[in-house]
Amino acid sequence: MSESFAEIAWGLAAIAAEFHSRGWVLGTSGNLSAVVERDPLRLAITPSGVDKGALQADQILSIDEDARMLSSSPGKPSDESPLHVRIAKEREAGAVFHTHSVWSTMFSDLHFAEGGLAIEGYEMLKGLEGVKTHEHREWIPILENSQDMWKLADSVAEILKQHPHAHGFLLRRHGLYAWGKDSRQAKWHVEILEFLFETLGRTRSMDRIQ
Amino acid sequence: MSESFAEIAWGLAAIAAEFHSRGWVLGTSGNLSAVVERDPLRLAITPSGVDKGALQADQILSIDEDARMLSSSPGKPSDESPLHVRIAKEREAGAVFHTHSVWSTMFSDLHFAEGGLAIEGYEMLKGLEGVKTHEHREWIPILENSQDMWKLADSVAEILKQHPHAHGFLLRRHGLYAWGKDSRQAKWHVEILEFLFETLGRTRSMDRIQ
Amino acid sequence: MSESFAEIAWGLAAIAAEFHSRGWVLGTSGNLSAVVERDPLRLAITPSGVDKGALQADQILSIDEDARMLSSSPGKPSDESPLHVRIAKEREAGAVFHTHSVWSTMFSDLHFAEGGLAIEGYEMLKGLEGVKTHEHREWIPILENSQDMWKLADSVAEILKQHPHAHGFLLRRHGLYAWGKDSRQAKWHVEILEFLFETLGRTRSMDRIQ
Amino acid sequence: MSESFAEIAWGLAAIAAEFHSRGWVLGTSGNLSAVVERDPLRLAITPSGVDKGALQADQILSIDEDARMLSSSPGKPSDESPLHVRIAKEREAGAVFHTHSVWSTMFSDLHFAEGGLAIEGYEMLKGLEGVKTHEHREWIPILENSQDMWKLADSVAEILKQHPHAHGFLLRRHGLYAWGKDSRQAKWHVEILEFLFETLGRTRSMDRIQ
Repeated sequence: MSESFAEIAWGLAAIAAEFHSRGWVLGTSGNLSAVVERDPLRLAITPSGVDKGALQADQILSIDEDARMLSSSPGKPSDESPLHVRIAKEREAGAVFHTHSVWSTMFSDLHFAEGGLAIEGYEMLKGLEGVKTHEHREWIPILENSQDMWKLADSVAEILKQHPHAHGFLLRRHGLYAWGKDSRQAKWHVEILEFLFETLGRTRSMDRIQ
Repeated sequence: MSESFAEIAWGLAAIAAEFHSRGWVLGTSGNLSAVVERDPLRLAITPSGVDKGALQADQILSIDEDARMLSSSPGKPSDESPLHVRIAKEREAGAVFHTHSVWSTMFSDLHFAEGGLAIEGYEMLKGLEGVKTHEHREWIPILENSQDMWKLADSVAEILKQHPHAHGFLLRRHGLYAWGKDSRQAKWHVEILEFLFETLGRTRSMDRIQ
Repeated sequence: MSESFAEIAWGLAAIAAEFHSRGWVLGTSGNLSAVVERDPLRLAITPSGVDKGALQADQILSIDEDARMLSSSPGKPSDESPLHVRIAKEREAGAVFHTHSVWSTMFSDLHFAEGGLAIEGYEMLKGLEGVKTHEHREWIPILENSQDMWKLADSVAEILKQHPHAHGFLLRRHGLYAWGKDSRQAKWHVEILEFLFETLGRTRSMDRIQ
Repeated sequence: MSESFAEIAWGLAAIAAEFHSRGWVLGTSGNLSAVVERDPLRLAITPSGVDKGALQADQILSIDEDARMLSSSPGKPSDESPLHVRIAKEREAGAVFHTHSVWSTMFSDLHFAEGGLAIEGYEMLKGLEGVKTHEHREWIPILENSQDMWKLADSVAEILKQHPHAHGFLLRRHGLYAWGKDSRQAKWHVEILEFLFETLGRTRSMDRIQ
């Protein structure tokens, strides 16, 4: 692991600010984490209840694999820390980002009954890890939302096992989780999936009736 | 009260610029205030007729509970000062923000006949003060617009009493008022409610006919 | 006249950059002018064929009432200079701004057959010079587009006489002209009218069928 | 050729950042090139797999007419380098930009069956090289997407010969290619075409049913 905690934290704060300016983590929504050490697992994570547009690197917290705070910094880790830990483990992800955009919130609801949605045939899919052609079909599972984060983490782990190739999932009326081998790739995955939701959404707004 | 007037004013100017860049306070629309002293009540408030994208902290004015200017600075307080004062009192709010976005303007008109609109089941609601679960149902009252700001302030006070749990209200074809215990929380409340209006608006544009 | 040419030019460049970031003057579209002297008339104006996002104050040109260059600077004044001169005269405007946004382009086409469109009942209208209440009805004339700028300037002058209270007009499939007593007010008028077109456009996209 | 490689590279990085902020080159999508020398042909081009919002000038690579790297810098040229080289040759373009926006992706799909789409009667068209009036009719060819970039480059060359006046083309579900005599003009062409797609898209979302 070549990056220090300070560098990782700085990167998370920069990405949080960019996502905030796009309207993807408004209010206190959204949270971002990155793996600092793999064994034992240690994550840098955004604190709960902060403005992602004004977040400073020194507010980033450190948690262990049980989502317990390791640092004695002020602040408390995101409520959704258990999901970050679980995804980091299941996918061996280096970074886990949760956005809460308008379009991802909409699709998490519109396709909930089918358990997910498929996106297929777009060049943009090629930016996802391991995808070599636009002919790829990406299945994005949708889970029911819950306030019991440990239970939700179990559901997430199960879904990730069922869909070993998925690059992200939606929580109903709650938004998107995506990840990558590092912060750079996780950011690309978020941008790619958000782009695709917007493209599908605008297409559907236009063509639904014809 | 730990923040000085200068710090509060600086914060209001920064938030005004951010809201302006999002298109929520275009032209001379929108106004922001924060409580400097509670007893006697003293508010920092944006002046009337300024570009919120270029507002400087030293342009922020000071008013009392009758919306009279306390400072001898150039400029005059927002015409809507009586609403700010009333909300600060009724809700014991530390900050009151009024935005004038496209989506809030639209919803203030579309649901006027029903006296308000309900938003329910979105995770984003959890960012509102006191809301613990996405299963919350938020009722956002809508009032008729008026140019008589003291009369409008009375109507607002009445509506706030009728809906003691409301986190914001709409003025018809005029936009959103939201507040919080401080500027930070009031900003979150604005972002959350604006996000929800946009989500409902885009969903309705997409699904209305099916 | 208290502002120097340099200050006016700096202001126009700053506004051009802001409009560009909003997507209102993409490509080489849009142009901005401000009166430097009233008698004889002398305007500062953006040059033809420049990126409004990268325009520097020292690129702003000086023209007379016949739209002839006064300065020996490189560059040539906007092709639409005759319109700026005419509006500055007819309205005694201190600044004239032409934007070319998506929504203004759409409305310039959708309501062309009726010769204009009315906007009524929005609080945002109160930001227009001389408007005291949201109950105001603003008529925005629409003119056929042309490449003969002197002929178009004559049509504009005629329309301005017919509608002495109009704060702006549209050129068909070409965009918006608005003005004000100075750059600050002209900018507000642009923001206000652009806001109203977007609001009407999104409302119509949502409700047309019900 | 008056610009040095360093100046050209700096310009490409600045434009890439601006396009990224508009959401036109999200994820790892999009690529930009500019001609450094004409004979033998030498292009500056954005590397493969980089964040266009964080791209630095010293990451820009140099390639020859066979899309082979000339510099020993780290990084590898965009996979789509063969298309850039071919367009630079066929059109004698000084810069070739590929964006991947939501609206261009949508139109590349919606009009694929007709082999392209016509845009006519908009003032914005006048910003395209050689277009003197808004009465111009611009035909934008659409090609099937492919992962075989050399084969795709051949199809592109053929389409460019068939449509000698086209200022851009679309790849199906993949986005827009546009070019110009230099980076400045290529940027204008991208902004103009993206504006027109958005205008057509929003008009169609609004009026389709009436």
